[in-house]
Amino acid sequence: MGPHPAVAAIRLAVRRVLHDILTDHHATPAHAAPAPAGHGRAPAPLVLVACSGGADSMALASALAFEAPKVGVRAGGITVDHGLQHGSDLRAEEVVLRLRGLGLDPVESIAVTVGRDGGPEAAARDARYAALDALAEDHGAAAVLLGHTRDDQAETVLLGLARGSGIRSLSGMAAVSGADGRYRRPFLHLDRQTARRACMAQSLTVWDDPHNTDPAYTRSRLRHEGLPALEKALGKGVVEALARTAQLSRDDADALDAWASQAESTVRDATGLLECAKLYALPPAVRRRILRRAAIEAGAPAGSLFARHIEEVDRLITGWRGQGAINLPGKVVAQRQGGRLVIRQG
Amino acid sequence: MGPHPAVAAIRLAVRRVLHDILTDHHATPAHAAPAPAGHGRAPAPLVLVACSGGADSMALASALAFEAPKVGVRAGGITVDHGLQHGSDLRAEEVVLRLRGLGLDPVESIAVTVGRDGGPEAAARDARYAALDALAEDHGAAAVLLGHTRDDQAETVLLGLARGSGIRSLSGMAAVSGADGRYRRPFLHLDRQTARRACMAQSLTVWDDPHNTDPAYTRSRLRHEGLPALEKALGKGVVEALARTAQLSRDDADALDAWASQAESTVRDATGLLECAKLYALPPAVRRRILRRAAIEAGAPAGSLFARHIEEVDRLITGWRGQGAINLPGKVVAQRQGGRLVIRQG
Repeated sequence: MGPHPAVAAIRLAVRRVLHDILTDHHATPAHAAPAPAGHGRAPAPLVLVACSGGADSMALASALAFEAPKVGVRAGGITVDHGLQHGSDLRAEEVVLRLRGLGLDPVESIAVTVGRDGGPEAAARDARYAALDALAEDHGAAAVLLGHTRDDQAETVLLGLARGSGIRSLSGMAAVSGADGRYRRPFLHLDRQTARRACMAQSLTVWDDPHNTDPAYTRSRLRHEGLPALEKALGKGVVEALARTAQLSRDDADALDAWASQAESTVRDATGLLECAKLYALPPAVRRRILRRAAIEAGAPAGSLFARHIEEVDRLITGWRGQGAINLPGKVVAQRQGGRLVIRQG
Repeated sequence: MGPHPAVAAIRLAVRRVLHDILTDHHATPAHAAPAPAGHGRAPAPLVLVACSGGADSMALASALAFEAPKVGVRAGGITVDHGLQHGSDLRAEEVVLRLRGLGLDPVESIAVTVGRDGGPEAAARDARYAALDALAEDHGAAAVLLGHTRDDQAETVLLGLARGSGIRSLSGMAAVSGADGRYRRPFLHLDRQTARRACMAQSLTVWDDPHNTDPAYTRSRLRHEGLPALEKALGKGVVEALARTAQLSRDDADALDAWASQAESTVRDATGLLECAKLYALPPAVRRRILRRAAIEAGAPAGSLFARHIEEVDRLITGWRGQGAINLPGKVVAQRQGGRLVIRQG
């Protein structure tokens, strides 16, 4: 008798990602940990799992513990103590014990200080990734696995949709991201329910983060109210459709960024200024990307630069009627001068 | 004292669109109604409003009646009797009287037969546009105005999102569409509440279509449950963000379609077959668009061709391991033969 279908599903997902990691690792062995002195053979690559103790990442840890030895990979684990709840340090120690219980080694807990920049969720995320980056470097890890599921992806797409800032913000989380493709998300095509079932089938104790059900958090409201209401109106396929939208949007955004990058060099004059006539001839989607890049290069913070800012700059090209300089975030000013667009910090 | 702010807003929206229509009309006078024989001057262009009697289109009719004479445009109205409810013919006659009461001339009611293709909403829409097209032709109308608001646009984006078929389906309704840009949507940036307020301020009787609150209709469920829940989770700006997403997605989809169209000619060999190596070198977003076009050209019905079909065809190029022919809708078959991709009806 084979494993429970949910367990089989999570293991297959991890097996595929380990295969990709090993392929990439052997192609570029240089960025892994250096071989110990006097030892001719490179050590087995280390793959870490980032684990909160919740069902998704516990399922991921269990699948990594099962699959890694079969392909000559060492499996370790990290849990991040965000220090946001009373007793979170004890919680982290519990997760460490559970990961060791799965046979992972090394396993570490790391405490971080969460700032306030960009709101509570963004600040926690920033602190978490900084800690994961540092630990991955310390251990010379080939990769860090993250337990985000298709449901997380659907929520991320809706959060991006609420910004209304275009298809890049609809593209959700990448299956591979970070420096050298460090972060991998094996469960991006699996649903949350499968991860939970796999934990139950393996009798793994999981922890339900109270933040996940706290209506003070946008993502939590989306998960427990917004998305279910949308499913009720549009049908059960919504989560899958959102996840597919993420992938398609990502590819589209990548292609358009590449086009803008290539086109940018053709619309500058000898002194490097943007020529309005040449910009005008480009498709709006490409032109606006060039304008956005130019504003960011001039010092406008990407996160404060909204679609409406770029639209206003675009009107200097498409709706020229002698309008004055346009103020952008970061004290950046855009103005049209003699058929050229000048974007610089004022 | 000027008009009520909501009335001012709907009039401004219509004024802008009339300006665009007149600009286009004078640029291409040929497709308007021919001048009567023996009469040297072209007649004033006619703009029709499609009116259900609901608040959005009644507001639109009232603004057209007010603005058209000021710019030398004749204003008329059409109401479509879908025959889906008992007494819909009497309802249509009532709307005709109300439109005449606003001073519109000509005003016509047209009865249509709604089929079943594509579900009740799509069938009603198809019948409606066929009737509007025919009447616009009969009257030599320069344009037909439609009362879709920003809220309708947001709903359309969510409906497209539920299909998960990429950014074209996120691009909602166009401000200008149809043959020669016949259809115009002046209220695409106005909210439904403004249209309703404008009717109240002008003491216009409006009709609330019971279909709009019938939970049997997807759009109605979205309007009354899905979107409010999403607003509760994500904040009040969701409708605006969705509408902006529509515009950005439309521009992006147009640019990528143009790229695919241009690239297609470069990836065919002398006999017109698609060369796999050249397709492989393209960005996935462009390659998949070329594959989709090729499948449709070969006879696959666009509406039955989903992202997963194209992904499978794409794997003949990106993940070639000798797999067999792939069956697509419309009995179209895609297969790889000697480095070429052959897509044809089997």
